Amino acid sequence: MLRSCAARLHALGALRGLRGGARPPARSPGPARRSLFLEADFHKDSSLPKPSWSKDMRLLFDQFMKKCEDGSWTRLPFYNYKSIQNVHDSIVFIHGRLPTTAKLVDKEQLSQAQIFTETFKDGLGFEYVMFYNDVEKRTVCLFQGGPHLQGMPGFLHGGAVATMIDATVGMSAMKAEGLVMTANLNINFKRPVPLCSVVVINSQLDKTEGRKLFISCDVRSVDETTLYSEATSLFIKLDPKKNS
Amino acid sequence: MLRSCAARLHALGALRGLRGGARPPARSPGPARRSLFLEADFHKDSSLPKPSWSKDMRLLFDQFMKKCEDGSWTRLPFYNYKSIQNVHDSIVFIHGRLPTTAKLVDKEQLSQAQIFTETFKDGLGFEYVMFYNDVEKRTVCLFQGGPHLQGMPGFLHGGAVATMIDATVGMSAMKAEGLVMTANLNINFKRPVPLCSVVVINSQLDKTEGRKLFISCDVRSVDETTLYSEATSLFIKLDPKKNS
Repeated sequence: MLRSCAARLHALGALRGLRGGARPPARSPGPARRSLFLEADFHKDSSLPKPSWSKDMRLLFDQFMKKCEDGSWTRLPFYNYKSIQNVHDSIVFIHGRLPTTAKLVDKEQLSQAQIFTETFKDGLGFEYVMFYNDVEKRTVCLFQGGPHLQGMPGFLHGGAVATMIDATVGMSAMKAEGLVMTANLNINFKRPVPLCSVVVINSQLDKTEGRKLFISCDVRSVDETTLYSEATSLFIKLDPKKNS
Repeated sequence: MLRSCAARLHALGALRGLRGGARPPARSPGPARRSLFLEADFHKDSSLPKPSWSKDMRLLFDQFMKKCEDGSWTRLPFYNYKSIQNVHDSIVFIHGRLPTTAKLVDKEQLSQAQIFTETFKDGLGFEYVMFYNDVEKRTVCLFQGGPHLQGMPGFLHGGAVATMIDATVGMSAMKAEGLVMTANLNINFKRPVPLCSVVVINSQLDKTEGRKLFISCDVRSVDETTLYSEATSLFIKLDPKKNS
């Protein structure tokens, strides 16, 4: 039961819209595991270099891939999901663990659902890849914000920056504790991020207190000299036993 | 000079990606004013009801339109902008007023730029309309989050909620002081928002201290019984005289 549950949490990480939460099973999964893993499209890992990536993005990617060679860092792949039936099952599973009594989204609406950060065509929206260091409990996100994320003319919308901060600190939380939910996000916007530039989001698990996880991050330019934003966050670990 | 500057700030409000910042000039604008107003497409006000709006969204819209009849509330229209040349001029104008030394986005990249919240096809992304009460310094946003804004299966991505909170408190700040920049956004996520549901974001200018504006808001269900999120924010008024 526990193992089945752990596998579910692992798969659900990807369903949350975070990268690296699910990987292709090395061998044929058991029935319980298959039911959730089949939601993902393992043919396309969207965190690999694309023609739309800028020179800065590729250089940073190569640098971090080098860091992965000794095993201290790991690139976190991302596999999107497709199967509506299984996603609906997952919603029911998650719904029982959340502080909500809201009505579930119906299947017709769900048939159009897409993960927010994966909605855009290549290069126009959120281009990013994450790397994780388990010893240091750090997640680094390389993020290239495309032209469809504009706020003030020429700069990224604050909401787009907040989205990637949430995704990155969320990944740190999920890698540490499994199924989690954002409880607080406190962002200081120091400078606006130019449209189409690359930034590095560096997040760190600071401490845990029971089911609470405190994670901070900063958003810097590629050469690290410009601090764009700083943020702190609080995540709550959801109870995997609830309703299971 | 001051008037020209004020007109610019008014127009730039819309360019920030916020609704209601620009309206069609009642009469032919002078040369200085025209240069920025021509960026907007005044033929399409995207904050009017659409077939994709749900029954809840339409009912709330009608209720607020009734409140507008005595002049206490005003619907804030939104006109998108198109002309690349003029937008580039605006970027240079804004750039001189921001705490940034970053390289400007080039014209080729800018030719693809779209306001983040306006990128999605009708009904799939951010459907919203804002209303403003000048006496109470309140901005209310009716927000229907479409299926392309998904985070956890069946629920809105926290970044999409943050984006609309930023847009709403930003509108309150802009209506009070003109050209502003988000300095801090502190969000408590109480409950996840179901995909495709309608929420009401109610923001309030709490106080101003010099160039600082403190604005709070909450995000509730249509019947107000469910509190989804609460947020506080700090905005900084940009100096209109700088570089002008």
